[in-house]
Amino acid sequence: MTTELEQQIAAAQEAVTKQGDTVRSLKASLKEGKAEKSEVDVAIQKLAELKLALESKQKEFEKTTGKVSSQSKEALRAALAGVLERRMFYIPSFKIYGSVAGFYDYGPPGCAIKQNMTQVWRTHFVLEENMLEVECPAVTPEVVLKASGHVDRFTDFMVTDVATGECFRADHLLEGHLEALLEDKKNPVSPEKAKVIRDLLAGVGELKADTMGAALTEYDVRAPGTGNAISPPFAFNLMFKTSIGPKGDMVGFLRPETAQGIFVNFRDLLYYNGGKLPFAAAQIGNSYRNEISPRAGLLRVREFTQAEIEHFVNGDDKRHPKFALVADLRPLLYSRELQMGEEKKAQPMSLGEAVSRGIIANETLAYFIGRTWLFFCKIGVNPARMRFRQHLQHEMAHYATDCWDGEVETTYGWVECVGLADRSAYDLKAHSAMSKIDLTAFEKFPEPRMEEVVKVVPNNKELGAVFKKDQKAVKEALEALDSNAALDVKAKLESGQAATVSSCDGQTFEIKAGMVEIKKVTEKVTGKTYTPSVIEPSFGIGRIMYCMFEHCYYTREGDETRAVMGFKPVVAPTKATVFPLVQKPALNELAGRISRELTAAGLSNLIDTTGNTIGKRYARTDEIGVPFAVTVDFASVEGDGSVTLRERDSMTQVRVPAGEVAVVIRDLVDDRTSWEAVTGKYPAQKAPADDE
Amino acid sequence: MTTELEQQIAAAQEAVTKQGDTVRSLKASLKEGKAEKSEVDVAIQKLAELKLALESKQKEFEKTTGKVSSQSKEALRAALAGVLERRMFYIPSFKIYGSVAGFYDYGPPGCAIKQNMTQVWRTHFVLEENMLEVECPAVTPEVVLKASGHVDRFTDFMVTDVATGECFRADHLLEGHLEALLEDKKNPVSPEKAKVIRDLLAGVGELKADTMGAALTEYDVRAPGTGNAISPPFAFNLMFKTSIGPKGDMVGFLRPETAQGIFVNFRDLLYYNGGKLPFAAAQIGNSYRNEISPRAGLLRVREFTQAEIEHFVNGDDKRHPKFALVADLRPLLYSRELQMGEEKKAQPMSLGEAVSRGIIANETLAYFIGRTWLFFCKIGVNPARMRFRQHLQHEMAHYATDCWDGEVETTYGWVECVGLADRSAYDLKAHSAMSKIDLTAFEKFPEPRMEEVVKVVPNNKELGAVFKKDQKAVKEALEALDSNAALDVKAKLESGQAATVSSCDGQTFEIKAGMVEIKKVTEKVTGKTYTPSVIEPSFGIGRIMYCMFEHCYYTREGDETRAVMGFKPVVAPTKATVFPLVQKPALNELAGRISRELTAAGLSNLIDTTGNTIGKRYARTDEIGVPFAVTVDFASVEGDGSVTLRERDSMTQVRVPAGEVAVVIRDLVDDRTSWEAVTGKYPAQKAPADDE
Repeated sequence: MTTELEQQIAAAQEAVTKQGDTVRSLKASLKEGKAEKSEVDVAIQKLAELKLALESKQKEFEKTTGKVSSQSKEALRAALAGVLERRMFYIPSFKIYGSVAGFYDYGPPGCAIKQNMTQVWRTHFVLEENMLEVECPAVTPEVVLKASGHVDRFTDFMVTDVATGECFRADHLLEGHLEALLEDKKNPVSPEKAKVIRDLLAGVGELKADTMGAALTEYDVRAPGTGNAISPPFAFNLMFKTSIGPKGDMVGFLRPETAQGIFVNFRDLLYYNGGKLPFAAAQIGNSYRNEISPRAGLLRVREFTQAEIEHFVNGDDKRHPKFALVADLRPLLYSRELQMGEEKKAQPMSLGEAVSRGIIANETLAYFIGRTWLFFCKIGVNPARMRFRQHLQHEMAHYATDCWDGEVETTYGWVECVGLADRSAYDLKAHSAMSKIDLTAFEKFPEPRMEEVVKVVPNNKELGAVFKKDQKAVKEALEALDSNAALDVKAKLESGQAATVSSCDGQTFEIKAGMVEIKKVTEKVTGKTYTPSVIEPSFGIGRIMYCMFEHCYYTREGDETRAVMGFKPVVAPTKATVFPLVQKPALNELAGRISRELTAAGLSNLIDTTGNTIGKRYARTDEIGVPFAVTVDFASVEGDGSVTLRERDSMTQVRVPAGEVAVVIRDLVDDRTSWEAVTGKYPAQKAPADDE
Repeated sequence: MTTELEQQIAAAQEAVTKQGDTVRSLKASLKEGKAEKSEVDVAIQKLAELKLALESKQKEFEKTTGKVSSQSKEALRAALAGVLERRMFYIPSFKIYGSVAGFYDYGPPGCAIKQNMTQVWRTHFVLEENMLEVECPAVTPEVVLKASGHVDRFTDFMVTDVATGECFRADHLLEGHLEALLEDKKNPVSPEKAKVIRDLLAGVGELKADTMGAALTEYDVRAPGTGNAISPPFAFNLMFKTSIGPKGDMVGFLRPETAQGIFVNFRDLLYYNGGKLPFAAAQIGNSYRNEISPRAGLLRVREFTQAEIEHFVNGDDKRHPKFALVADLRPLLYSRELQMGEEKKAQPMSLGEAVSRGIIANETLAYFIGRTWLFFCKIGVNPARMRFRQHLQHEMAHYATDCWDGEVETTYGWVECVGLADRSAYDLKAHSAMSKIDLTAFEKFPEPRMEEVVKVVPNNKELGAVFKKDQKAVKEALEALDSNAALDVKAKLESGQAATVSSCDGQTFEIKAGMVEIKKVTEKVTGKTYTPSVIEPSFGIGRIMYCMFEHCYYTREGDETRAVMGFKPVVAPTKATVFPLVQKPALNELAGRISRELTAAGLSNLIDTTGNTIGKRYARTDEIGVPFAVTVDFASVEGDGSVTLRERDSMTQVRVPAGEVAVVIRDLVDDRTSWEAVTGKYPAQKAPADDE
């Protein structure tokens, strides 16, 4: 059986290699304008599927032969955390002062990865889509966040230990308590009770203050640690508050998201874009949330980097001109239907099908789902462990049309890394109402059209006689009616009833026949004024980094202590290391020259002249995920003038002339060549004995 | 006379061109390892000097012939501000809500320039110098800023209008008032009085609360606008305050500088660097200062990006291994001596000479001055309008060894853009004292040395008898004495006096003979433990951007309404524009293909199919400083297959085959070729009539 499997694996491996070549040649053709973007994307998708098939075969093999031990989630997480902290990818902030929960510092490799990932994001989205990038302050005056709803509604429910005053998130406490009840083997709950508890658990996120309080009381939830009674739950606003200016009279907050900076600039951005829609604006920057109980490392922190896009579009036409380029991609979709169904499992489906079947609301939203999926593939998240989960109806804000979360599978379960939401025209309307500034766009029709419009003509004399000083307010209220509301008034008046209209400050007035004339007329219309809808893809950079860390981490076969971070070259913090085989001036000199050439080519690199064994040096660089290593030996300076170039994951090695190695690595990092092509071109070198 | 000058200008121009070629060929040799970095830097320096000579000749020419009208500072500033706001380089934040002073948004071109400049900084400093980059949160717990001194001393003096409560910076009010007195032509002050006022003006920054208050009273300074009396000056802390966590009991501030994040991580960074010194850490991030009265656009804002370096070094040896690479650079130095002298003018001086003459305190500080100067040249600040000004003795903190500000000349005067300070071991000692964590480094001597050391041996029995429960504290206080303090105690005791020692919690104890034995002994010492000194170069990115804007801005000769932002290609937000000459499908198609090729080469570009005249389209792109423009005409699709490539500053044009143009622009942006070389290689094209 093993032999048959091994043959299948070899065949799958060959298919992956072949398809990899196809992708690369298509990419080259694309650059020369001889291929379409869609062809490349389809080929990439095909490649991902083939890799998936290979991986599943490999897993089957591992299971059958037991060659790779299956680490538990916790062990894997702890081992990875060890590498991440030891190598200073990130560490708790303010360590010498005992740290503060929810704050992390990125050390040198973490910092470099974050920049590389952000740069890939910027190229993939901002540059390729011609988005308008902006950068706005984090300190934000209250009025902006009042308009957006954050001052009133950006809250979590909190409870306190009545004796110690310690604070807890109410939903976390309740969830923990209920899960413990279900798992309690000594005092098992009845099947009926278990169902009640499971239903409650599924809906914890939707509870209000009173229902949350009732549930905490019913299950007698107590403060962890002390067992004391807890307070009733109350809403705690998650924004950091401060004061702007010297007088102390202007309340400010640290922004809880970067999006609002784009919305308040909509008018200037529209002007910048020549008045044309659709267009997208983007912002990368830090946001702040004063979490009640931060946990799970980078996954829930109080200061974090977001990359957000606001795509402004006419709500009547959400087609996307480039949709065809992603229509054939087949990411895992976890639709509302699948979540409510029996199997509760995401399924691959082409985005074209998802839109045509009405599963994804429109082309623009689906386009960004496709682009997001390609971005995750680029940076090294395993596409087989990433899905797009649709929000259930009750999860969405009332104004939202459709929302999907990009989720990645980790040892913490499925982690939400991206939110993709069609937010309709809510945001611009809210800011327009608060600021009294017009935030509409005008769409000029190609030809003026004759259209039936509803005209409202107030009878000033009659209004003046009845409403006196309120005449103006009533007139304005009538003129502000939209077509449907005006026709409602007309119908009421014609049937002999009175109608009611409201002024913008909330007064209501009773309208009777004769006070207003409402009629349908046909007019020449040159265009349409509308408040644009917004499609918002919002990325949490730190979360994506953490998920990528989990997917890239592995240990060398047969040695679980030898950790490898298998970063994609484009993301890797250091692209290459240079080792003189032994400590000799001539070798050090050549190593120095190669290092300078790598730097000149813009490639971050490390030179290691410690004189440790090559194996030890490889082990160190494996931990920070350096994809390529150059070793300089005596032959390099006295013999053939070549150096050894080694690829991290395959551990295969070739001999490359010293003068060419920087160019070869540059091409590998930029994906202009593949390791297969390099091993085809240059002679192989057997690994030294201490490499294993 | 004009003719002679013109000849001189031509010769100077030729010298610049020739030297430019030398620099480029040296750079190429450097990449191949055939030239030294120092040779390149010297050549760059020479080029800058030649450019300077050319510029001075050109200015003389302008003055003599009057060909370019001299705009006043205010007119230039207003004209530039018009371009910057119209093209959305940056605009006041929260505009639709009436804006908040001291906050700016970067629009698309500003955002791109900021990223490009930051990337140049990162390559120039972090990558080339192998610095350890970190990223720390802006939200900082109080203890960190208590240790650094910001909680107690990061203040400005403020006064308020006693009637309206409006707030003003005391020093700004006093300065404005004194300057008005000096400039008052109607009631001129006496020469004696004028001298007194000028002396006071020069020292406004050094006044304390009482002397500031006395001066405000003496000159009867009143609130601007209202003329009301003002309050006495009081210290206002410039940090934004907030609260961390749900309990509201942990005070936090937004960091006023990024440096502290590096200091608190010193121990981990030293470990990361294998325990070796010197090393430098760097951080790019936002800092926050709640300025009392923000003004002057980007020059004084409440949220701004800093790029800071902390170079940790043994205070006994501040030589720098790469100093030779910058020793021959000759930036304008404005030493203490020159500032106190008659001429009050900066002078060019080689950094080697400045160090050897003791003008700059040490090689490491001078090395960073040189690197900073090269950075400013790279991003397009005019080196003739940049100087390094040394702090006068009374400007420096007591612990600082030497400080220089990198200043750039603008219409606002000389603007401080970079601070370069030798801060001794102050910062690490302050954090070590507050956190009780050891922040020292250990230098192992190449060979163990026999050294005379001072030994302190407390007499436990005697101490116990005298101090009882305080015995331990006294013993620790004695053992903590450094060599000099111990010898002082020894001398006192031997002369029959009592000595006093202090415990770390501030208690003092009287020590008498017999309580301790203090002796000099010769011991084998393997190394030395010390708190490293810090050399800190600190860059204000927004200020540098604004200064660069002023230096790059000019108008087309003969048309002061045609603004050009003459950005260096590496900094320019958009590298190229693509114009179809007229609106025809074949032309649009080729333009689209070239645009895609530019994008694939990582070059931001704009395609303009508006059908406006080419002249109008050039004018638009000149304003956002696009260095290269590609025009597609009928010959491009039906004739020779070439397109027109135009360089912004010279407005000269060449014909380049359509398939080569992306590569040519990539090489120009990366400085791998020059425009002179391109015009030498490809045939020239006369500008169309509407270009002017």
